[in-house]
Amino acid sequence: MDQSGASPHTSQTERVILTLREMLLRGDFAAGERLAELTLVRRLTASRTPVRLALDRLAREGVLEALPSGGFRVRAFAIADIRDAIEIRGVLEGTAARFAAERLSESDELLRMRLCCRDSEQLLPMTLENFVRYVEINDAFHAELWRLAKSAMLTRAIEGLITLPFAAPGALVFVNPETDEPTQLAILALEHHRGIVDAIANREGTRAEALAREHARIARRNLNSVLTDRELFNRIPGASLVRLPVPIGAL
Amino acid sequence: MDQSGASPHTSQTERVILTLREMLLRGDFAAGERLAELTLVRRLTASRTPVRLALDRLAREGVLEALPSGGFRVRAFAIADIRDAIEIRGVLEGTAARFAAERLSESDELLRMRLCCRDSEQLLPMTLENFVRYVEINDAFHAELWRLAKSAMLTRAIEGLITLPFAAPGALVFVNPETDEPTQLAILALEHHRGIVDAIANREGTRAEALAREHARIARRNLNSVLTDRELFNRIPGASLVRLPVPIGAL
Amino acid sequence: MDQSGASPHTSQTERVILTLREMLLRGDFAAGERLAELTLVRRLTASRTPVRLALDRLAREGVLEALPSGGFRVRAFAIADIRDAIEIRGVLEGTAARFAAERLSESDELLRMRLCCRDSEQLLPMTLENFVRYVEINDAFHAELWRLAKSAMLTRAIEGLITLPFAAPGALVFVNPETDEPTQLAILALEHHRGIVDAIANREGTRAEALAREHARIARRNLNSVLTDRELFNRIPGASLVRLPVPIGAL
Amino acid sequence: MDQSGASPHTSQTERVILTLREMLLRGDFAAGERLAELTLVRRLTASRTPVRLALDRLAREGVLEALPSGGFRVRAFAIADIRDAIEIRGVLEGTAARFAAERLSESDELLRMRLCCRDSEQLLPMTLENFVRYVEINDAFHAELWRLAKSAMLTRAIEGLITLPFAAPGALVFVNPETDEPTQLAILALEHHRGIVDAIANREGTRAEALAREHARIARRNLNSVLTDRELFNRIPGASLVRLPVPIGAL
Repeated sequence: MDQSGASPHTSQTERVILTLREMLLRGDFAAGERLAELTLVRRLTASRTPVRLALDRLAREGVLEALPSGGFRVRAFAIADIRDAIEIRGVLEGTAARFAAERLSESDELLRMRLCCRDSEQLLPMTLENFVRYVEINDAFHAELWRLAKSAMLTRAIEGLITLPFAAPGALVFVNPETDEPTQLAILALEHHRGIVDAIANREGTRAEALAREHARIARRNLNSVLTDRELFNRIPGASLVRLPVPIGAL
Repeated sequence: MDQSGASPHTSQTERVILTLREMLLRGDFAAGERLAELTLVRRLTASRTPVRLALDRLAREGVLEALPSGGFRVRAFAIADIRDAIEIRGVLEGTAARFAAERLSESDELLRMRLCCRDSEQLLPMTLENFVRYVEINDAFHAELWRLAKSAMLTRAIEGLITLPFAAPGALVFVNPETDEPTQLAILALEHHRGIVDAIANREGTRAEALAREHARIARRNLNSVLTDRELFNRIPGASLVRLPVPIGAL
Repeated sequence: MDQSGASPHTSQTERVILTLREMLLRGDFAAGERLAELTLVRRLTASRTPVRLALDRLAREGVLEALPSGGFRVRAFAIADIRDAIEIRGVLEGTAARFAAERLSESDELLRMRLCCRDSEQLLPMTLENFVRYVEINDAFHAELWRLAKSAMLTRAIEGLITLPFAAPGALVFVNPETDEPTQLAILALEHHRGIVDAIANREGTRAEALAREHARIARRNLNSVLTDRELFNRIPGASLVRLPVPIGAL
Repeated sequence: MDQSGASPHTSQTERVILTLREMLLRGDFAAGERLAELTLVRRLTASRTPVRLALDRLAREGVLEALPSGGFRVRAFAIADIRDAIEIRGVLEGTAARFAAERLSESDELLRMRLCCRDSEQLLPMTLENFVRYVEINDAFHAELWRLAKSAMLTRAIEGLITLPFAAPGALVFVNPETDEPTQLAILALEHHRGIVDAIANREGTRAEALAREHARIARRNLNSVLTDRELFNRIPGASLVRLPVPIGAL
């Protein structure tokens, strides 16, 4: 940074990162494709340094892969990677829940989480109309859980994980007007949320951890559901980065 | 990357990252100090782009902090951050041990870990002479544990954590010729290593996870030991980045 | 035993045990009441030895308390005892689920549990008519879980616990035609059952254990529900042995 | 009980139970042997009722087996039964440690456990002379752990388990002047004890539970050690009730 304030590159870099990330997630590049720096410079009408910074950043985020030779290629994920990423999120959020139980100083700290539980209950059954609101409340619940862990190091680990597009708490929440499965899973998710809050309130760290782990499994069930339907599968953030052994529906 | 091969910046960037990381770890900058890009360009005799890339990378690694205004400052850690980072490593390595137990296909996969156990046993009691070798074997054991988890996503999460200088398995292993505590802890560590191998061999995922978690606690005990001795404390990688509430020895 | 076969006392003893246990559970004696052997001999028209054997047996089962002076009195339980007994059942059944996962030799061993899941799903929503059948299937699921643990010692520990009248898996399952809570909890219980089966099938012992523990918590929720309603509370097996701090409804 | 005080049978019954239990544990009967009531009446010079009560009691304790036909035979245990009983003790003591962490009201409650840690440390290395004292302190530590769980139901479950002669905390603690293994295991046991106390003090229920479980594993290691030595094996309480697939030493 020069002394005059933010580097002139900073905002351009942020723009390039945002654009390139979006292109990657919507499938503008194939899984495994090598990215040429000069092509990106032209395509994104950016200077070379912001492009390099963006490539480096997206490699850290996990959607690009740095090659030993010095370049980058688009990461190709397997279904097993998504499953593992979800399970690891469960492990980290389980630790957040346990820390929250071990470090709670007064029960009022749980008010925001209780509010999220009440608000999401009122949204049930889940419809196309209230789906966005549901995901917002769900995100708020999880963010609050991380906050109550009172651990900058744990927040860092969770943030490092959920840069993987399919690893975030809301990444695999769907609404499907044709079945009541999303509503059934939302009821189960609410059970988990309530149980986590109660366990933290009672300082039952073991139970809080186990529930938060099990909670992440809902995302794996959603994953299994969408593996039978190409259209639904493509709604997963980063779906284009996933290499499937056989076409969707045949899995 | 241009088509002609690695970017001309690549090797310079790697050099700048290495140098700057080393400077940070040996305390050339104070915890919390703002880093001026131009100063670094001069001090490291590098062009601006490699310096920017290095700053961005080291912020990802956790030793720098990106400021909202666009610059970077040296991260200031608290003792609680070190404790939490160690515990989170225990959680992730616990997951590695559990995955290894759940995913083991044949017992021969454990041979390398068993070899590490035997080799480190033969090094006891720990001396100044065999200390480096001991740490190498310890690192090899942990690397093998991560490998047996068979999970690219988990490896990524562990690697993302141990870029924190004090979070790696060997970061808080010490030898102190004046006491037999390091040898006692090495015996305990060997117990843990053996127990982890047995639990994986018997597909006892719960036990494997619990042991690997408890194993990381040895680093916390080492941390507590060195908190009474400034000279020992400074041997922790990244010690200069730690802000202490009171001087060492008074803790 | 004499050489001629079963002791003449055996069948009489079994009759006395059954009768006395039933009297205790339906509240013929007050919690804490001292039982006089001679009175029981008259009241049960039995000889002294069977009565003594029955008293000793029921003390082992936990519903009587042996006094240091040599007699027996009716056990007085607190609500906290019921909560703890349920949690300990969760711990033991969690161990059963973990053992089952660690000791499974082929997936066909899970067929009976899968059948229970399907059968209980078909009974939903729960009604007064299908309630008895629901409890039977639930009992069958749990018995099968214990069996798959392949551990005579664990079976013994579980059987020793569930002689406490309120500790058995079905003891706190209710149907209440006025609310849909029983059906909601039955759906949650089915989720748990399915999750336990899947976790065992995938040799995920940790998850199997956590789910079986959480599953027992449903009984605690049922307990909390009935604490507001004297009539429902009295349906708990052994309700008359519970000493309440304040009248039901005021809790 | 008659109104005049303890039944005349009570003290005789207690004597018969003690004598018969001792006979069973020292191997006066073979594993699997049928016990004839009349023979016992003569051999123990007792009346029939105390003998029947004793048989019933010892069947509850697990060393006799009630036959469907009405008699009793000596229980024949397998090595796997001992292993499982030890693991189940670990599970129950793990729950005690977790309850203690969740229910601790002030740190002074841990003083007695801390005292046991200090006292047993001072006894190391373990010798034939201080072995009895070591076992006493160990028993005191465990009894205190159970007490701090503040759960009558859990105490009952633990007591029901450790009537199995080989399941109690001290049952498989040995001293062997020829090797330093007992001292090494005593050091490890002390590590566990200290860790359990710290985890309870810090309200870390998960860690407390995991450590207490792992602690019980020491008994399994002792079991494995004595399986190679008939003389040592016979020191296990209830060794004569164990049916071995092959002679000791060939295992």
